[in-house]
Amino acid sequence: MEYEVITSAANKDVKLLRSLHERKYRKQTGWFLAEGMRICKEAISLGYAPVRLVYAAGRGDDAMVAELIAACHQNGGRAMEVAPDLLSRISRKDNPQMVIGAFSQNWQKPQVIVPQIDDLWIALDRVRDPGNLGTIMRTADAVGAKGIILIEDCTDPYSLEAVRASMGAVFNVALVKMSEADFCDFSRNWQGAIIGTALQASVDYRAADYSKPTIMLMGNEQSGLTERLRDTATQLIRMPMQGRSDSLNLAVATGVSLYEWLRER
Amino acid sequence: MEYEVITSAANKDVKLLRSLHERKYRKQTGWFLAEGMRICKEAISLGYAPVRLVYAAGRGDDAMVAELIAACHQNGGRAMEVAPDLLSRISRKDNPQMVIGAFSQNWQKPQVIVPQIDDLWIALDRVRDPGNLGTIMRTADAVGAKGIILIEDCTDPYSLEAVRASMGAVFNVALVKMSEADFCDFSRNWQGAIIGTALQASVDYRAADYSKPTIMLMGNEQSGLTERLRDTATQLIRMPMQGRSDSLNLAVATGVSLYEWLRER
Repeated sequence: MEYEVITSAANKDVKLLRSLHERKYRKQTGWFLAEGMRICKEAISLGYAPVRLVYAAGRGDDAMVAELIAACHQNGGRAMEVAPDLLSRISRKDNPQMVIGAFSQNWQKPQVIVPQIDDLWIALDRVRDPGNLGTIMRTADAVGAKGIILIEDCTDPYSLEAVRASMGAVFNVALVKMSEADFCDFSRNWQGAIIGTALQASVDYRAADYSKPTIMLMGNEQSGLTERLRDTATQLIRMPMQGRSDSLNLAVATGVSLYEWLRER
Repeated sequence: MEYEVITSAANKDVKLLRSLHERKYRKQTGWFLAEGMRICKEAISLGYAPVRLVYAAGRGDDAMVAELIAACHQNGGRAMEVAPDLLSRISRKDNPQMVIGAFSQNWQKPQVIVPQIDDLWIALDRVRDPGNLGTIMRTADAVGAKGIILIEDCTDPYSLEAVRASMGAVFNVALVKMSEADFCDFSRNWQGAIIGTALQASVDYRAADYSKPTIMLMGNEQSGLTERLRDTATQLIRMPMQGRSDSLNLAVATGVSLYEWLRER
């Protein structure tokens, strides 16, 4: 097959892909952007085919690009060869990756969260920073967690910044949204542990009981957990702090907690 | 004393403070910016007085601002009342803090690194991301580490982004620069452990020996440690990875390692 190289930023598909930087359009379309060969390949191997794929002009015959194009077509998607400067425009990067895919978001229903032995979920209360959320997805994947529960208004896990920081983990962890009230209801029936972190906690994180199906509950970057959410915890833990600061970066605190959970496996 | 409120972005001091966003001018002046009452107060309590201090017009009589102004003057610095939009311009933020200080950078000589019992240093090989470096300073402070050794071309710990992510820890951890060759020389005489992280390592991070004075050696975000630096390690460790990705975010990996070191204390 022959394709024409798209060179105009006014192209309908190019405009659509560029619009996915905005949460509004991600919501409208249910799509999001993921950049780079490695992450797109990973997505396909996990059962996600791109609904749109753009690749650098002249690279359509590279074996790996051809594979992505085939997967895109198989899924009824559209693959497009584009001028290099359009890749920059779509990714808003000076040195863009050779391929960028648009994929369907994959939100899960709260019903997927069932208390199975050795299952770990991470619940985040109003996480604000996309870099933190992406990094937490990456760590969640690394320890084999099932997924992430986003409570109330969180930053979008499908923003380009969060997806970048997740290094592909966005395709490998389940994502569930809940209101605070719904999480409180849910917590009452949860047959497992809910381990919350709080500066005021008296239990050292190493002394917590990680043997049950666990939800690790982490607070907002500035204000920590709300009181209502703290009350859902079966245990509140803290990390020892030897210096002058009283808290860790959220992604670091989550990482230390998750590796502590993994230690007990 | 009475001061005039500075309203012009062409003011010499305002221009100088704004120039500190650029590494070149930070290098030229030896200064850097830190924002916010809390961090500026912390700096003063650690013996750093601002060489320049700007504060929102009308707030000079607030007890805490007055304290900062006094410390600034005592140190021979200059405190200036400025129009709110100038604070935005200096910090490049829509909602700037009420005070912004310029402080002198405080690089330490390699000679400060001596192998004392329970001492921990973190050595970073070509760290690129200012958010990662700031977060690592914050975690280093949290576990009571002595400081950070920056090997070869690292991102600047005194950039506004790194300082922000450090949450004040930039004032509480020693910072030392070394070339790779100098670090290799230094390592030969180091009477302690150098624990490096590497994907190829065979030792689990929980099995490492953290009992000696320790340098935790972490690689670059993309490429990890260079071979020469790997060779300086007395032990190479890895973190278990249960998911699809083969590595953690650098600040998370450092955090997990540092808390493992702390566990042995």
